[in-house]
This record gives sequence, C-alpha cells and structure tokens, in this order.
Amino acid sequence: MIGIGLLGAGTVGGTLVRRLVDDRSAIATKTGLDLRITKIGVRSLDKARPFEIGEGVLTDDLNAVVDHPDVHLVVELMGGLEPAGDLVLRAIEAGKPVITANKELIAIRGPELIAAASSRGVPLLFEAAVGGGIPIIRPLSETLAGEKITSVLGIVNGTTNYILTQMAEHGTSYGDALAAAQELGYAEPDPTADVTGADAAAKASILASLAFGTWVGRDQVHHEGIDNLSAEDITAAQRLGYTVKLLAIADQTDAGVCARVYPAMLPNDHPLAAIRGATNAVYVAGPAIDQLLFAGPGAGGDPTATAVLGDVIDAAREILAGAQAALRIQFSPGEIVDFGEIVTQWYIRLEVADQPGVLAQIAGAFGDAQVSIESMSQEGRGDAARLIIITHQAKERQQRAAVAALEGLDIVRDVGAIIRVEGPTS
Amino acid sequence: MIGIGLLGAGTVGGTLVRRLVDDRSAIATKTGLDLRITKIGVRSLDKARPFEIGEGVLTDDLNAVVDHPDVHLVVELMGGLEPAGDLVLRAIEAGKPVITANKELIAIRGPELIAAASSRGVPLLFEAAVGGGIPIIRPLSETLAGEKITSVLGIVNGTTNYILTQMAEHGTSYGDALAAAQELGYAEPDPTADVTGADAAAKASILASLAFGTWVGRDQVHHEGIDNLSAEDITAAQRLGYTVKLLAIADQTDAGVCARVYPAMLPNDHPLAAIRGATNAVYVAGPAIDQLLFAGPGAGGDPTATAVLGDVIDAAREILAGAQAALRIQFSPGEIVDFGEIVTQWYIRLEVADQPGVLAQIAGAFGDAQVSIESMSQEGRGDAARLIIITHQAKERQQRAAVAALEGLDIVRDVGAIIRVEGPTS
Repeated sequence: MIGIGLLGAGTVGGTLVRRLVDDRSAIATKTGLDLRITKIGVRSLDKARPFEIGEGVLTDDLNAVVDHPDVHLVVELMGGLEPAGDLVLRAIEAGKPVITANKELIAIRGPELIAAASSRGVPLLFEAAVGGGIPIIRPLSETLAGEKITSVLGIVNGTTNYILTQMAEHGTSYGDALAAAQELGYAEPDPTADVTGADAAAKASILASLAFGTWVGRDQVHHEGIDNLSAEDITAAQRLGYTVKLLAIADQTDAGVCARVYPAMLPNDHPLAAIRGATNAVYVAGPAIDQLLFAGPGAGGDPTATAVLGDVIDAAREILAGAQAALRIQFSPGEIVDFGEIVTQWYIRLEVADQPGVLAQIAGAFGDAQVSIESMSQEGRGDAARLIIITHQAKERQQRAAVAALEGLDIVRDVGAIIRVEGPTS
Repeated sequence: MIGIGLLGAGTVGGTLVRRLVDDRSAIATKTGLDLRITKIGVRSLDKARPFEIGEGVLTDDLNAVVDHPDVHLVVELMGGLEPAGDLVLRAIEAGKPVITANKELIAIRGPELIAAASSRGVPLLFEAAVGGGIPIIRPLSETLAGEKITSVLGIVNGTTNYILTQMAEHGTSYGDALAAAQELGYAEPDPTADVTGADAAAKASILASLAFGTWVGRDQVHHEGIDNLSAEDITAAQRLGYTVKLLAIADQTDAGVCARVYPAMLPNDHPLAAIRGATNAVYVAGPAIDQLLFAGPGAGGDPTATAVLGDVIDAAREILAGAQAALRIQFSPGEIVDFGEIVTQWYIRLEVADQPGVLAQIAGAFGDAQVSIESMSQEGRGDAARLIIITHQAKERQQRAAVAALEGLDIVRDVGAIIRVEGPTS
C-alpha cells in the first residue's frame, strides 16, 4: 500500500479523492498499485466537503500530513506560495516524493525545490502545473530531451482563450465575454491573474525552463494581457488573415533564451489559430521534430486530477522500485535575452485628432525610432479618427520608443491596443 | 559513460549516430549523460554509410553487439521479426535496457518481450514505434495511467494520409497520388504494408494494448486499406461534410476492447479531419480528460531519432539510478470484442445496371440483413449507373451480410468501395 498525503481539498483535490476511491480497483489492475489517501490537510475543518472520508483522515495540521508515517508521498494542491512551498520542501527533505499542480510555486521557487529534490533523489513532479490534462511537462523533459527545441508557443490559459473566441466568433465585447466566462465558471470572480497574462507567465517560465534547460524565472517573463483589446481589434486582425490569441512564447536563439506572454496575431493556418474556447494547446518546434502540437482541456477538476494521478502512479512505482530518480533535465546557466531585444511586428490601434498633418507627425515618430510602417489605415472621421498601424519587424525597444513618442503627441488621444504579429506576414 | 549498442544503421539508425556525435555536448549539458555508440551491428559491412565511425565499431556479428561489455543498452532499429526479436530478448536476458522502433515486433511478440523485461526489471522502451516523433507511448502508459480511456483514434500512417490529402485537395486519382508519394520518398517502392492498412494495424495493436491494459495482438486487429478508394468517393464524402482518413481505432465498451483499421469518414469538425499530408495525429478520449490531440511528424529519420533518443536518455538515467523500472502498465486478460459486433454506419459505392427495379432489389437486400438505409443517390445514367448508399448504424456482420447479398445480385456489377462513417451524422 502506498499512502498519499493530500494538501488542499478544493476542486482538483476533491476530484482526486473521489477518483482514488471510485477507481481504486481499476488503477490496481492497470498499474499493480494499491493507492490510498491516508491524510488530508485543509485550512478549515468546518467546510463541507463533496466527498466521504474516514475518521481521522482530515486535519488542519498541515505539517502533520507531511510527517505522518503512513504518508509515503505528498500531493500539494493548495496553491499559493506559502505555506505550500515550505510544506513541499519539508516533504522532500523527509525523502517523500511530491506531486504538485502549483505553477506559481514552481515558477518562483523551482530551482531551489528541484535542486533539493535532485540532491536527495526524490521525485518532484508537476505535470498538472501547465496545460491541465494535456501531457506536456513529461514530453518536454523526457521524450524531447534529445531535441534542440527552438520554440514553444502555448495557449495555456483557458479563460482568456474562451474570451477571445467569443469576441472573434460573435463580435462580443471584452466585458461581455468576460462576464460570460465568469458565469460558466471559466473565470474567477477576480479574473486579474488570467486577463493580465500573469497566470500564463508562470506557465511560460516553466515551459521555457524545461524546453531549454536554462531556468527562466517568473520575474524574467514579460507579460501583457487581453484586457485592453476590443472586438474591433479582433475583427481588424481577421480582415488581415489573423487570429488573436494570448500566447506564452519561449524561444531560443544564438543570443539566448527568452520567455514572454502577450496577445498575438497568428496566421489563420497556424495550428494554434484553430484552438477554440477553453481548450489549451502547446506547439513545440525543433530542427528534428519540425512541429508538434498537444491540445486538450487546460483546466478543470477532472482533467487536472488525471494529470496529478499520472504523476502519483509514477512516483509510487519509483518508491516501490527503490529508484533514485528525479527530474530528467539538468539546469545550467544560460543567457536570457532581454525582451527589449526581441524582434516582432506590431499592430497598433490609435485614436487621433482628425486634422491635417496627423499622418505626417505619426509617420515621423516611427521614423525617429527607426521603425518602418507596413500599412496604415484610417477608420471613422469627424472629431476623432481611428488609425490601425502595422509596423515592419523591429526590436521591441524600438517599437516601444515609437509608441512612447506617439503618446507625447498632442494629436494622439489614446494608444488603444497593441498586438504583436507572430509568424510570417503575407 | 553509457555505451550504446546499435542494431541496424539505416535511415533512423544513421540519423541517431550523427545526432549522438553532433549533439554530444548539448545532450551532456541538458541531461548530465555521456552517451556513446560503442558497437553498431549491420547485415553488410560493405555498404556505404553516411556517417563516420571509429575503427572496430561496425560489425556484422549482431550477437556480439548485444554481448559486448561496453554496450550498456541496446537500440534495435533493424525492423522485422527476426533476428530482431531474438536479439532484443538476448539483451533483456543480459539485463540490458532495450529501445526499439519496431512496431511489428512489439505488436506480435509484445507480451513475451514485456514480460521478460518486467520480470528482470529491465526497461523496454518503444516510443518511436507509433507516431514517429510524436510523444504518445509515454503519455498513454504514464501520464494517462489513471484515466479510464474510452477510445483512441489515430492517423498513424503518413503515406496514406498524404495520398488521401492529395485526392481530397486536388482530385488526384489514387494511382497518381501513390506515385507522387513514392517520388517524395513517403511511400516505399512496395507500398503494400502502408496502403493495405497492415502498418497501421500493428500500431493500433500497440495503442489499444497500452490504452486499455489488455493486450490486443496484431492478429486481432481487423484492417482494410485505401487501395480501392477513388477520388469520387472522397468528393462524395466532402459533399456530405466529411473528410476521409485511414484510421487506427481502439475503443473500450462494457463488452470489451476492440482495435481495427479502415478508411473512415470523419465529420469535418473532428480534430483529426484537419490533419493534412504526411503528418500523424492521435486523438484520445476519456471521461476525465474529455479529448486530447497529439500531432506531429509520424515518420522520417530525424523525428524518429528524436523519439529513440528520448528513450535512450531515459534508459541511461535508469541505469545510473540503479532503478528496476519497467513498463508502467500491467496487462491483464480482458474481453476482446469480435469486429463483427462493432456498430458503424457504412458508405457504399455500387456500380449497377441502369434498369427498372434495381433500387427495389437493392433495398430488399439491405432489408433482409436488417440494415436500414439513410440515403441513396444515383449518379450517371446509360448502360450502368453508380449508386452511393449511406446506411444507418448496424453491426458490422449485418452490414457485411447486406453487401454479400448485393454481390449475389445480377444487377450489381461491382461493390466499388466501402467507407465507414465515424462520429455523429448530421
């Protein structure tokens, strides 16, 4: 019997408890393992739980869960940095394998926790931290360990992809689409982490680190969200043959590694352009494998519990085999490219005064920053006009300098939205 | 240092040799492993090789490769059942991990080889046997070990998918599309194994066995190919809102497990319908993960070598960790459903005499077999007419009885093509 200590019994934790009870014999038949939850640590003992649990299993003494002699591995599903981080470290130091779905924790304390796990030969597994039910951590760190991956592009936040899909397919406003996402339970009451790209940034940090073997910390991931996009921006992109997606991007060039999150225009024939609704997908490119696509449910109790369960089964087998296995990738120091040096094309929506000489002033601002313009189109007339500008490729810092100069012009009322263009333009 | 003994140095083997030389330091940095090919066993020493190799490494004594003290793990890329099978067994019995891309060998001798590897705690890994560079074996057997998978649908043969794509997008005839595939190197000079579905059947056997934990042998997989499809069939399917794909299908119902391969009409909005050209893809459905899609290059030296390399790195780490790990899935006896009991809809193209009473006779044959007809349309008139019939759902054996009865009718000149309809019909 392998005893599991569970920390946190929310949506995913509750589903895991139910699955481990309902599917115990099916799991035993398929894997030969007898898995049991021996302790569950929660913050409040008074809260109603949607599952039945034996006497003495539930406790609010979280350290006691980790320390209990019948807990052979620890599943951390509390989320947040503390006390989750110290509990994970405590388990590793006690030689107990840890499975976690906590993306913030791995993105922020990953190097420390992974080093602790490696030095003790204790598995620290986090398949569920990125892409929910999609197997991506293990393929990146194991199956593709021998590939020189060049880039990883991910739709790793289902809430924002649902919102963008609604805006693209029904012309819904950002606010209405967000409200619909909240009603369906895709978005939290406070959707900040999703819509600002912060959630995706933690996942980009993990994807980049595993793909390239150089740790890219959460704070080294520039992120922008979708909260200032309008349905008109989505429509303008569609007219140009693009689909707007919030992308987590990690790439490696001769200069080094860079990870970032922003709304991007993808050519309609890109595999990620077809990913609709709350579905997640990760696209991996490399010289030998060319391109791979992994798609599936990126969140939700059931898919995430499947990913956690896969890690639990793996860790349990390692315990029985007496293995000293840890993460398959070694991290080594590498150059991290400053985001300002990354070359992209920009889509810029501007609200400007409708008066003679406006275009000349705007073109001048781009010229001064040495950014050339691919196309410029004006919509609406009267007191104010709307300009949609697509620049040619230039470094991020040049594009920003141009926009800063625009913001200093009297005739520019507002820089409404910026969307980067990924992939070849026609 | 981990010494690799390579058996077979064709396209994939040659690429692996080159990668292990060119990428040695990159692999060492990322994984901490010093991997070297110490022996290469080939059938002929006289053949020119597209890679440089040290003195004494190449040999035609295949047993000596397995037995060599500096060979710590064996990579089998010879293909075929013998001598590959006995060499793999010899390595396992010597306690040496084996990596193979040999789908026929696993599909036919899998239970025996896996049992031998399990009882000795020796890794036997075969990620490259299905889907080339797409990570699918490990996700199915590890990440999804806790999921009650209900079905796996795969486009697992790039040659036939290329041919079907050409027929669908350019109206090319089957013969011309096959010739183009051969010219591009997608199809072998003898394309029989690809176009008859035999190659896909071996892969369906492996996918079904791993997904359900019940071994489905190669001989238990019914297979049909694409060699009697015409461009008109593809067009007729398109008119009805379907895309024709050669599918490897594995599913599990209360009655048991069934695996099969045949050309099928997929609704255009099915994720597999969009998989074009030589790309492979595997679709996995289950109650918790809903649906997952894995897509990428299904063949070719470089992608396949990446999959082999991932397995080599995994096995090497297990050697260093002193692990007793083996395949994560235990196989247990289970019911295998006879293909005749599987319920599908059929598309049938018939060439019939154009005379009064034809439709009544044909409808009678279906009625006698208790298969009802969803639609029937006639194309062409004159001496002969072409009928396209779509049946309602019925058991395979009833559909076959109906077609056997049709073949006995004087007015039926030819049963041109049969395509099964997968997924909901509109």
